[in-house]
Amino acid sequence: MVAGLKGIRLAVVGGDDREIYLIPELQKLGAYIVGVGLEKAPPIPGLTLVGTLLEAVSQVDVLLFPMFGTDERGLVKAKYGNSPVVLNKEVLQAIPSKVPLCIGWARQALKSAADMLGIRIVETANLPELAILNSIPSAEGAIQMAMEATPITLHGSQSFVIGLGRTGWTLARMLMGIGAHVTGVARKSADLARAAEMGFQPVHLSDLEDQIGRAEIVFNTAPAPVLDRVMLEMMARDAVIIDLASLPGGTDFEYAQMLGIKALLAPGLPGIVAPKTAGKILAQVYPQLILRQLSTVNALV
Amino acid sequence: MVAGLKGIRLAVVGGDDREIYLIPELQKLGAYIVGVGLEKAPPIPGLTLVGTLLEAVSQVDVLLFPMFGTDERGLVKAKYGNSPVVLNKEVLQAIPSKVPLCIGWARQALKSAADMLGIRIVETANLPELAILNSIPSAEGAIQMAMEATPITLHGSQSFVIGLGRTGWTLARMLMGIGAHVTGVARKSADLARAAEMGFQPVHLSDLEDQIGRAEIVFNTAPAPVLDRVMLEMMARDAVIIDLASLPGGTDFEYAQMLGIKALLAPGLPGIVAPKTAGKILAQVYPQLILRQLSTVNALV
Amino acid sequence: MVAGLKGIRLAVVGGDDREIYLIPELQKLGAYIVGVGLEKAPPIPGLTLVGTLLEAVSQVDVLLFPMFGTDERGLVKAKYGNSPVVLNKEVLQAIPSKVPLCIGWARQALKSAADMLGIRIVETANLPELAILNSIPSAEGAIQMAMEATPITLHGSQSFVIGLGRTGWTLARMLMGIGAHVTGVARKSADLARAAEMGFQPVHLSDLEDQIGRAEIVFNTAPAPVLDRVMLEMMARDAVIIDLASLPGGTDFEYAQMLGIKALLAPGLPGIVAPKTAGKILAQVYPQLILRQLSTVNALV
Amino acid sequence: MVAGLKGIRLAVVGGDDREIYLIPELQKLGAYIVGVGLEKAPPIPGLTLVGTLLEAVSQVDVLLFPMFGTDERGLVKAKYGNSPVVLNKEVLQAIPSKVPLCIGWARQALKSAADMLGIRIVETANLPELAILNSIPSAEGAIQMAMEATPITLHGSQSFVIGLGRTGWTLARMLMGIGAHVTGVARKSADLARAAEMGFQPVHLSDLEDQIGRAEIVFNTAPAPVLDRVMLEMMARDAVIIDLASLPGGTDFEYAQMLGIKALLAPGLPGIVAPKTAGKILAQVYPQLILRQLSTVNALV
Repeated sequence: MVAGLKGIRLAVVGGDDREIYLIPELQKLGAYIVGVGLEKAPPIPGLTLVGTLLEAVSQVDVLLFPMFGTDERGLVKAKYGNSPVVLNKEVLQAIPSKVPLCIGWARQALKSAADMLGIRIVETANLPELAILNSIPSAEGAIQMAMEATPITLHGSQSFVIGLGRTGWTLARMLMGIGAHVTGVARKSADLARAAEMGFQPVHLSDLEDQIGRAEIVFNTAPAPVLDRVMLEMMARDAVIIDLASLPGGTDFEYAQMLGIKALLAPGLPGIVAPKTAGKILAQVYPQLILRQLSTVNALV
Repeated sequence: MVAGLKGIRLAVVGGDDREIYLIPELQKLGAYIVGVGLEKAPPIPGLTLVGTLLEAVSQVDVLLFPMFGTDERGLVKAKYGNSPVVLNKEVLQAIPSKVPLCIGWARQALKSAADMLGIRIVETANLPELAILNSIPSAEGAIQMAMEATPITLHGSQSFVIGLGRTGWTLARMLMGIGAHVTGVARKSADLARAAEMGFQPVHLSDLEDQIGRAEIVFNTAPAPVLDRVMLEMMARDAVIIDLASLPGGTDFEYAQMLGIKALLAPGLPGIVAPKTAGKILAQVYPQLILRQLSTVNALV
Repeated sequence: MVAGLKGIRLAVVGGDDREIYLIPELQKLGAYIVGVGLEKAPPIPGLTLVGTLLEAVSQVDVLLFPMFGTDERGLVKAKYGNSPVVLNKEVLQAIPSKVPLCIGWARQALKSAADMLGIRIVETANLPELAILNSIPSAEGAIQMAMEATPITLHGSQSFVIGLGRTGWTLARMLMGIGAHVTGVARKSADLARAAEMGFQPVHLSDLEDQIGRAEIVFNTAPAPVLDRVMLEMMARDAVIIDLASLPGGTDFEYAQMLGIKALLAPGLPGIVAPKTAGKILAQVYPQLILRQLSTVNALV
Repeated sequence: MVAGLKGIRLAVVGGDDREIYLIPELQKLGAYIVGVGLEKAPPIPGLTLVGTLLEAVSQVDVLLFPMFGTDERGLVKAKYGNSPVVLNKEVLQAIPSKVPLCIGWARQALKSAADMLGIRIVETANLPELAILNSIPSAEGAIQMAMEATPITLHGSQSFVIGLGRTGWTLARMLMGIGAHVTGVARKSADLARAAEMGFQPVHLSDLEDQIGRAEIVFNTAPAPVLDRVMLEMMARDAVIIDLASLPGGTDFEYAQMLGIKALLAPGLPGIVAPKTAGKILAQVYPQLILRQLSTVNALV
């Protein structure tokens, strides 16, 4: 089901290396791409660079902002930009109502402003398909970090995966594929049953305290303060924590440091460890999304 | 989290070999068990046999009916019974309102009657935990059937799994573990993304027609008429279909036969191919369920 | 590296369903095939049937006898033959010295006779490539037998594989792929190290006695009397033995029966459980073998 | 089969972090350990440090030199040494004939000298058990390097493993466990058959030229100049080579650089990426080795 993007004009705004791989894929499907904040990127044939965000919004059918979204002042992450790209009130007011604004995570302020101005915000980071595909580079990034941080092999190690969601399943499966003894920690009995089926040792979150003492590597994917002082106290001092939960993670990092437990926060791995794969994932998901958004918008108009 | 059943009285009504393995496990947890329709079963120490269902309902705290439920006339499947065990109006009226009736699948008529009489029906077959654990014997049973029905090895075969639900995931994973080339067929893009992550070739249901021609073995788990005349026409005549969907399955069996395509219906595998495992699965899930039901009932009283 | 067989004349002598799949594959590569003992087989276009073995040997460049070889009186297994096909002295004397005789297993008497008569016997069953590929249908056959013979699932079972040779590795890997807890039993420390790497619990043969008590299913692939009275005594009475070792197997079957332990002998599985795959395996290995034999013979002449 | 080392005196000479983990394990088995070239190591209770190698050789039953052996001038690698530790003629002459000298790789000069002096050299790096167990940290190290060197995920990548020996099998299995499409390249048809059984695409070395164009990551484990100019020319310019073959590797690194192909040499990974696991592997293999050597020596005396 390849979706054609012929005749559709897209603005790619800032981002990182992922966008460098994404743009040619969208062009291959027929899209015309306008780039903002990409001045210092390696040249991409057919890409039209414009100087400001304001210029871009009036020329396109869809706006594509990066996965990281904006900071609290509206600054868009733009690794290859010459000057700051800011999504401010003036820009927002200039966005035509039928132009959807796709962005990884949207801050509350942005959502409110968009709401008032009648702009359609499409948050992409939590699209199930995208989140599952992104779990692949995330899991590999976490594995790489664990390999770097430990003097042991993952093979034969006691590895715990806390939280069996999109990233948790992928990570647990890969760890087992390498040869680790994987313990899957979750709250739902259905998840624990599935963990058992897949060959992980299932542990209910409420029993984690009794089990964590044998962990050599702990991967946390649960967006909750699971690895708190009490839990950290139960852990081996030479265990290593890789925390994949979105900021601020689920670990009491200060306390871990005090105990001498190495704990690393691993945010936004896909764009860092495998930008090419992550860019291709976007290229796989965005076309359908764009077409769906445009047909919805047009149906409303 | 082992749940104690000390002091709790349970009636096990009919069933098959699973119940033979289930009863001792429940006894180990402290339950007192009354059996109905188990006269011809191998003797189980500590089991009290009663002659009729009516006798049983007045003596116990919870009623456990088999996974298959009853037929349209209320007849309970009882492989080891001497005489028919029937869940009729008289029995239903005798069930105290605080005694939950657990049963795999409940027919609509039973649900309506129970509703009117204020009896709490607990359908267990669709409990997520139980359904996932039961997918293990189901998948192995389907694999065994496929091994028996084909002149090829699963290793190296083009095996399609239609429907990526509880049984579909388990089956696809096991097939890959043996060495098959697995194609996972689903409708949701999230399921297709997960299929890709797990190493299956993802195919959208709407593209199945174009792909099914290369299938050597097709496992259907989708409760819908997927393998209809049009689809069967596209299949190789020496392909084999194993249909795991609940009755009547998802295959046009008559048409398959006409085309010379071997198609087998595989209903209720857990109790047939691995009754001991299936009984232990019940023994793993029921205690929590029983305690939860009793505490709910008591809270209401 | 597809080998062409253009202009080469082959006799396929007896055999079972494998040969039915093998012949067309050899024909596709250009070989001219003469069949003996195949009168009742489904008709194969282009196959020339001859009435006697004597007739065949004078017309071809290479003789292909079945994997099972002959019985002690020279009788060739010929599932689809009309009358007995016998490899007797008269036939042997008629085989030109430059015509290699390929056969699965050759009895000592046959080898001696061939030696005296200057006939080149090529035993194929122990060709490493063929033996490894045949381990796939063997392992699946053993898995199927275990599924049929036990009331438990392989998933989650304690499965022992005794002997980590060609079939042992394949079987252990597949069992783990299904979800069994696999114990690999061997004598060499290198094999035990590899077992650990692959995720099996390694047990030295000399420690088997201490471990076998926890086995639920025991697969024997070692051609030695490993499962003797002492070992059987240590086993659980409801364990199941699948013995894959060549006749007479490695189990004291009588004693097992006396103890109530179910023990099954599984000889020659490839041709039985997956003749199509097994035939294709022969078709994959034979062309290179034939060409190598012919060039050796010609070099000698 | 835990081997006791009670009453046995061992010298651990130089080495790296592996030895830090090895020593306590040997002590646990009852060995008395003398250390040379370990002055700056974290203190190990019960370890007796001596100042020179000469001092050590007269006090012990077995000498344990590091996996890396010595350089051409006899210098022993000693990460934690205060002053150079040299295995020179004087030292060799002082080694009693019944004291075996265990060392990873021994240079030819060392072997000749030992031969003349009647010293038993035991090369450990090629012990099958040790080599297989060491393939685990080697493979993980190679995977870590590949993750760091590529902008793609291993999952879904076209990964080639050249050489299916001890490290090749482990690496290929782990890559598949992560989700890579693995191509196994070897010369022996038996290895290619096993590769097919394990789910890798088998490619004969003589066909590599036709296939390597699709490789995204190439792992070389063959100690031969496989990745020469001709082969490199056929590769994609953005492919990455991880060369695990012992020095000087199997890649024309200069030519690769000229073509813009990233190629990395990965020697001696176990001690670098997972010293704790590598030390425990030594601790698993050495006791049996030591006992075997001592009993051989004593039998000879």
